[in-house]
Amino acid sequence: MALMTGEQYIESLRKLKTKVYVFGERVENFVDHPIIRPSINSVAMTYDLAHDPEYAELMTATSNLTGNTVNRFCHLHQSTDDLIKKVKMQRLLGNKTASCFQRCVGMDAFNAIWSTTFEVDEKYGTTYHANFRKYLEFVQENDLTIDGAMTDPKGDRGLSPSQQADPDMYVHIVEKREDGIVVRGAKAHQTGSINSHEHLIMPTIAMKEDDKAYAVSFAIPSDAEGVFMIYGRQSCDTRKLEDQADIDLGNKNFGGQEALVVFDNVFIPWERVFLCEEYDFAGMMVERFAGYHRQSYGGCKVGVGDVLIGAAAVAADYNGANKASHIKDKLIEMTHLNETLYCCGIACSAEGKKTKAGNYMIDMLLANVCKQNVTRFPYEITRLAEDIAGGVMVTMPSAADFRSPEIGDVCKKYFQGVASVSTENRVRILRFIENMCLGSSAVGYRTESMHGAGSPQAQRIMIARQGNLEAKKALAKKIAGIVE
Amino acid sequence: MALMTGEQYIESLRKLKTKVYVFGERVENFVDHPIIRPSINSVAMTYDLAHDPEYAELMTATSNLTGNTVNRFCHLHQSTDDLIKKVKMQRLLGNKTASCFQRCVGMDAFNAIWSTTFEVDEKYGTTYHANFRKYLEFVQENDLTIDGAMTDPKGDRGLSPSQQADPDMYVHIVEKREDGIVVRGAKAHQTGSINSHEHLIMPTIAMKEDDKAYAVSFAIPSDAEGVFMIYGRQSCDTRKLEDQADIDLGNKNFGGQEALVVFDNVFIPWERVFLCEEYDFAGMMVERFAGYHRQSYGGCKVGVGDVLIGAAAVAADYNGANKASHIKDKLIEMTHLNETLYCCGIACSAEGKKTKAGNYMIDMLLANVCKQNVTRFPYEITRLAEDIAGGVMVTMPSAADFRSPEIGDVCKKYFQGVASVSTENRVRILRFIENMCLGSSAVGYRTESMHGAGSPQAQRIMIARQGNLEAKKALAKKIAGIVE
Amino acid sequence: MALMTGEQYIESLRKLKTKVYVFGERVENFVDHPIIRPSINSVAMTYDLAHDPEYAELMTATSNLTGNTVNRFCHLHQSTDDLIKKVKMQRLLGNKTASCFQRCVGMDAFNAIWSTTFEVDEKYGTTYHANFRKYLEFVQENDLTIDGAMTDPKGDRGLSPSQQADPDMYVHIVEKREDGIVVRGAKAHQTGSINSHEHLIMPTIAMKEDDKAYAVSFAIPSDAEGVFMIYGRQSCDTRKLEDQADIDLGNKNFGGQEALVVFDNVFIPWERVFLCEEYDFAGMMVERFAGYHRQSYGGCKVGVGDVLIGAAAVAADYNGANKASHIKDKLIEMTHLNETLYCCGIACSAEGKKTKAGNYMIDMLLANVCKQNVTRFPYEITRLAEDIAGGVMVTMPSAADFRSPEIGDVCKKYFQGVASVSTENRVRILRFIENMCLGSSAVGYRTESMHGAGSPQAQRIMIARQGNLEAKKALAKKIAGIVE
Amino acid sequence: MALMTGEQYIESLRKLKTKVYVFGERVENFVDHPIIRPSINSVAMTYDLAHDPEYAELMTATSNLTGNTVNRFCHLHQSTDDLIKKVKMQRLLGNKTASCFQRCVGMDAFNAIWSTTFEVDEKYGTTYHANFRKYLEFVQENDLTIDGAMTDPKGDRGLSPSQQADPDMYVHIVEKREDGIVVRGAKAHQTGSINSHEHLIMPTIAMKEDDKAYAVSFAIPSDAEGVFMIYGRQSCDTRKLEDQADIDLGNKNFGGQEALVVFDNVFIPWERVFLCEEYDFAGMMVERFAGYHRQSYGGCKVGVGDVLIGAAAVAADYNGANKASHIKDKLIEMTHLNETLYCCGIACSAEGKKTKAGNYMIDMLLANVCKQNVTRFPYEITRLAEDIAGGVMVTMPSAADFRSPEIGDVCKKYFQGVASVSTENRVRILRFIENMCLGSSAVGYRTESMHGAGSPQAQRIMIARQGNLEAKKALAKKIAGIVE
Repeated sequence: MALMTGEQYIESLRKLKTKVYVFGERVENFVDHPIIRPSINSVAMTYDLAHDPEYAELMTATSNLTGNTVNRFCHLHQSTDDLIKKVKMQRLLGNKTASCFQRCVGMDAFNAIWSTTFEVDEKYGTTYHANFRKYLEFVQENDLTIDGAMTDPKGDRGLSPSQQADPDMYVHIVEKREDGIVVRGAKAHQTGSINSHEHLIMPTIAMKEDDKAYAVSFAIPSDAEGVFMIYGRQSCDTRKLEDQADIDLGNKNFGGQEALVVFDNVFIPWERVFLCEEYDFAGMMVERFAGYHRQSYGGCKVGVGDVLIGAAAVAADYNGANKASHIKDKLIEMTHLNETLYCCGIACSAEGKKTKAGNYMIDMLLANVCKQNVTRFPYEITRLAEDIAGGVMVTMPSAADFRSPEIGDVCKKYFQGVASVSTENRVRILRFIENMCLGSSAVGYRTESMHGAGSPQAQRIMIARQGNLEAKKALAKKIAGIVE
Repeated sequence: MALMTGEQYIESLRKLKTKVYVFGERVENFVDHPIIRPSINSVAMTYDLAHDPEYAELMTATSNLTGNTVNRFCHLHQSTDDLIKKVKMQRLLGNKTASCFQRCVGMDAFNAIWSTTFEVDEKYGTTYHANFRKYLEFVQENDLTIDGAMTDPKGDRGLSPSQQADPDMYVHIVEKREDGIVVRGAKAHQTGSINSHEHLIMPTIAMKEDDKAYAVSFAIPSDAEGVFMIYGRQSCDTRKLEDQADIDLGNKNFGGQEALVVFDNVFIPWERVFLCEEYDFAGMMVERFAGYHRQSYGGCKVGVGDVLIGAAAVAADYNGANKASHIKDKLIEMTHLNETLYCCGIACSAEGKKTKAGNYMIDMLLANVCKQNVTRFPYEITRLAEDIAGGVMVTMPSAADFRSPEIGDVCKKYFQGVASVSTENRVRILRFIENMCLGSSAVGYRTESMHGAGSPQAQRIMIARQGNLEAKKALAKKIAGIVE
Repeated sequence: MALMTGEQYIESLRKLKTKVYVFGERVENFVDHPIIRPSINSVAMTYDLAHDPEYAELMTATSNLTGNTVNRFCHLHQSTDDLIKKVKMQRLLGNKTASCFQRCVGMDAFNAIWSTTFEVDEKYGTTYHANFRKYLEFVQENDLTIDGAMTDPKGDRGLSPSQQADPDMYVHIVEKREDGIVVRGAKAHQTGSINSHEHLIMPTIAMKEDDKAYAVSFAIPSDAEGVFMIYGRQSCDTRKLEDQADIDLGNKNFGGQEALVVFDNVFIPWERVFLCEEYDFAGMMVERFAGYHRQSYGGCKVGVGDVLIGAAAVAADYNGANKASHIKDKLIEMTHLNETLYCCGIACSAEGKKTKAGNYMIDMLLANVCKQNVTRFPYEITRLAEDIAGGVMVTMPSAADFRSPEIGDVCKKYFQGVASVSTENRVRILRFIENMCLGSSAVGYRTESMHGAGSPQAQRIMIARQGNLEAKKALAKKIAGIVE
Repeated sequence: MALMTGEQYIESLRKLKTKVYVFGERVENFVDHPIIRPSINSVAMTYDLAHDPEYAELMTATSNLTGNTVNRFCHLHQSTDDLIKKVKMQRLLGNKTASCFQRCVGMDAFNAIWSTTFEVDEKYGTTYHANFRKYLEFVQENDLTIDGAMTDPKGDRGLSPSQQADPDMYVHIVEKREDGIVVRGAKAHQTGSINSHEHLIMPTIAMKEDDKAYAVSFAIPSDAEGVFMIYGRQSCDTRKLEDQADIDLGNKNFGGQEALVVFDNVFIPWERVFLCEEYDFAGMMVERFAGYHRQSYGGCKVGVGDVLIGAAAVAADYNGANKASHIKDKLIEMTHLNETLYCCGIACSAEGKKTKAGNYMIDMLLANVCKQNVTRFPYEITRLAEDIAGGVMVTMPSAADFRSPEIGDVCKKYFQGVASVSTENRVRILRFIENMCLGSSAVGYRTESMHGAGSPQAQRIMIARQGNLEAKKALAKKIAGIVE
């Protein structure tokens, strides 16, 4: 099958019977739901750009499984060059959507599960890798969007899965049958869940034997029996429901999405199971997925950052403040921080290594360093954007005021910036900045930068583990002339 | 007249015919408008606490004009002790509302205009100070809330008032009559405008002779002929309109408010005029008001910060993460930053000096240092709060989902934290944090911290001017043995 | 007795038989030792300025013990005004010496021991407070410099005093006799030790019963039997020994000093004992001394910072770079950071409270916040100073090169900055900056800012303890509508 | 000729008649001068490691000019892989010396001049590229160390070369002869100047026609007629002259070096001239050299950082503080910052592109971002190292005290840390940290990080120029729906 277009992707979603709840009610047609649609458009962009010759090298790759051209989001990285292109593709999509485009979690899950299942099979003689290969061929050939789902609700953070008061706080196997397994639980904060054709489930932490029922990985169609999703509410989400929704949205067309995905005793046939009780491999799968996903943030958030820097510069132009040296300097600082993130994304890719299974893994230390910076710099970039934009960003009247026969003209008069630019355009750029700093996209650009792919402390633990402190001590002792 | 209670204050607003527009339409009863009401409640708290004996020392003072007990918000600071109590009162109100309580702008305007008019009269033999004294007695005796209004729309930031394409981009005198003046223009981003009984207008920048028509200060009832206001839209504002609006608001009862106030050829009698064309004093009035208001932020934002720190600690408790050393350390850092702001608020007060007019002025250098820190630390405090809260803060379902007969129980099940705490309480604290970091109160805690009382660069210019670099150079040369 | 002059102070040191070692050898005349002398000059400044009418209000006070005028360094703070003046006096001395002037440790010890002994006596019926009163009268009347000595060598930081392999790693009582006690051990990093007439010893940590022999406080002349000192080596110390030592020193006249003070079975008569085995008060004495000393850093380091900012500005002038906007902005930032420290020093003073013993204690939370900032901002200020100074600061030839008949002219030619300034003056200001950033004064401005009055983590522990997190949580719960 | 060993390199220096001044006097045998020797040892390491099979891949390369194996320091980068290996080689050498090893400036000059001369010739039909090719073959075949010299003394930073009061403030052509040119002036802050066999001169800024006499590039032996050097004095330099110099040095064997190199009417034959009055290419040569050198810092300073992190960890072990969570966290932060620099070094290499002349150029934007971070993070890393080390680092007695028959034992007793580690070893590691934070290596690790390869503002200008703000604005406008 050929690569889907964005339009074909959207149509393919209509065919699914995905069970979705928004504001407490079942949504029949989620594809056209105004709150959901912008996030679907972001995913659609991953399809459309694959047809644009300008971006073909970034957006597509030759499958090592079939030799066919596939969307890079479905690809197993075959080289450090592939890893670098992944990051560039993500920056590109950030540039085009100023949002989370949601398809990375699947790509990162593919690559993590591919190499982990290989090593599980090697140790236990299981057939997970073959299962997964077959599954991935299906995904590639149908150009699907897959939600690589890791994070469980977790309940009490001080307790392990099996210690929780409610056993369902982590997804677990409730029954092993001849034809498959039955699972129960939920995955929380699932990026792009509703917009995915399928879900690919992984455990969320390293485990010990007591937790072996929680060491499970599998794939399932999004509209399978027993699966349903509850949409997460975002800042300013209901502006999308307003009359003539446009300007006040800031970003009318694109957005991100998170949801709770519930598995209410769901059956999974064996051929779609990729880990089942081999608890000693849960940690490997988690670390590899997290590693890839921490790399991802060195691309996607940089792409969004580019747009926010551009928006701040436009606001400065429209305010007549673009020649002030402090404004120029703030734009430089934003650029500097954003490109530092990009450096981290590129470096952990360039330093990638081949796995036993043959695909390429990023450098684990540098990917964690990358994500750690992502938990900081976008916050400073938004702070500087708010500085440049001015207070008007959050004190302007609504679009309805600007349209009002009674006071519209007064609004236009008093929110004019430089004379050569229409007030509407000034309002548009300010609302766009608001959207990224405080509005629905702030969920993606700020909070997701903080917690996506693991909260900051998770990266610090990995940095400690990967930093090879003993070797550093030895270097110091040698030069300092210390003999112990 | 006695000090009003919060309830009396609210009733007093009902008597005004203030002309207010929200979402493009005239609002007849703004007092009960669900979007506006929380901001009124915040102001009401400034009245209620004045009746609480526990807070009497902070909330009230003895008027130097009448000898009566007045609300401190109407008081002229008579000592550094008064200046310090002002800051403590503001911290207290931040503690009680987690919002902007809006009444500071009036207090800061009173103190700036009091001393500036004294010096204008001294130079020009005018009677502005007597005018203002009479006006302030009226305010004190009626315990009014006054919008001290400074910021004009400004149009092109690269041009002075008189150079703007539209002469109305700054408030200006269009006619001088025997009985008074007629003014035209608007004030933007007016904190608490709609909730104020009167407006007290000041110029927004230092001026030269060409701009003398813009050098004007006066007082006017909020419902005067020709005055009207357009409500500024905030992040998540319409959550207040939702069915059973409560949990998703985060802070149901309190909030802040900004509006555009338009003066459409408004008449001001001479007795309410406090500056009229004496352009060489515009800068003094601006700097003094800004100085007091930069001090204010060392109180109010600290008070809000206290609540945010507390909320983050509660979230950590509810997540079962409160014993982790990195969580404890982040709470320490938040406290450290918040108390650093408080130090600045206290220090510029303790170092205050008496003006020629007899009231006390803060230390200008330290007040600017205070505000400069306020443009930074609340952003880091919110970043740390988002870190501690976890991603769930922005991916949770809506309150409607939690109430839904169909999925409410599932939501409650999967968003449970530690077993001993109800999911509702966990959701409440997370929504409260969301409110301050991304929601309607983020306007006050973030953007207002950035731009209120002047954008960061305005403070830097003042720091440069007040830093006495020449004296510092002399110290260095002396010790370094330099003779020029 | 009258206040001593600097000269009289220096002469008074000559009368002491203080036993001092430098570079492994006993120094007979430490007063004129070129490595030590600049640190003596810094202390002498505390005497000389007390005679300058311009500074009398800051430098002197009326003793509450005798009613006589005393040097403020010997004073018990009688009000918040006294606490504020202390900070201003310290800033002044930093301005005059660009160094550590060493006399604060005594002043801070007086105030801590005064109030602690009062409370020990109250509980145990001891007479330490009377002992100390008599001792302090002696100090005040003789205008002495006292080394308030706290920090023990500590050995293994993971073990308590009594658990150490060597019992002498903390000063302790080895014998209690009828006429007094015998002590043993050492105090490390003692600021101004050699320049002090006497030493006033305090314990360094809170203690439990096992450590009671270590809970000891007493006073002793610096040249008492069994006491000796070993001079700490500083960066670039031997430049002071060079031929025609001047320019390369950066700061020829002033410096700081630290030493190890050893107590080799030293006898202390009971009248000079202020704590003896009352281990439950060790913590109080430590916290109070540390609290005062953390306040001190909001004065002295600010004073040094002023000079460094001035020096950087002079360097920019001499480089011809003073009009560049980035240079101006860096000077603003340095000023901003420095004044933030000052705000903390002032605030913890203004918020001081009376102790049971009648003198004034600083606000403990804010004093710890002050010191915590001091562990950060001077480092950023030096970084910015190094930025402005340029690389030439560390790559210039030595003064000997500039004096050389063969190459002196070449040096002068090529290290000329703007034509109107002599190369010598340019070199002087650069060497002065080097002195504070990398040279002997960097010990005081950097490392002492970090570790003096307790290392950063010590302040964080106090901030956690003083931050009242439970009250903050209650505020948050109330506003968020949480009922538990 | 084969690759030299370190020993052969040192012998080769002895054969030069380089004219060197230290402390105002001509040094006959600079090779064995105790102040200079450690910096020679650092360069020697670049020779020795090239013979170690473990490092052969990093340390050597195949010359594109001759096909011979050459030291990578003499190599023209033929691929992004070469650029990455360069960075890794630099990190390795930082690991082995904890110093500046000085040979990078030559390597970076080779690569910049190679591509620039190609483009000059292309435009002007000159033969500089052929000249340079011949010269580089000579360098490669003789395995020379070359000082790539750029920075002029500059005089008044507000004036261009030709506007200076003294025309010699920038190196310039004083005569063009048939057989060559005569040049005059000096290069300042020259890293490794004295340790280099030859000097390779480049202009230091972009130029206009008035400055064309200053647009000159050439090569010259270090001991040529008219060339001489004056050694720059470093913090703590004379510790190397002390009796039994060892422990107090911190780093006994290795160090860096800067000097002033004077050209007193020096003749250069045409075959060694690479630019002569083509002022429009001065900027290109500067930017390319600076670009490579800004990349370099993402390797060498990371290598030194590794050692400093290791040293801090050893100090924590020896203090008995290594289990404290705040210590662990600080080591993580140091690692995080250090690896962020490495990411920048790797990224600007991986994104390198082929020049017209065939060698590879780094990505200019990312290399400037790299260096900008280097002006910040080493300062924070040293701050954290000073935090972990403790105040004892700067208050300890000298080595002479520890050796003293009279007080040596007392010193050993009281500066013991954990019982299992000798005091000497503890002192060694603390002095080593002091060396990097305040001592002679601080010149390299701090100030050179700030100013080497251009001061911070130089990078910001390049970031502004390379950041493509217009493209970012276009992205923002498109998504925000702005049509102008």
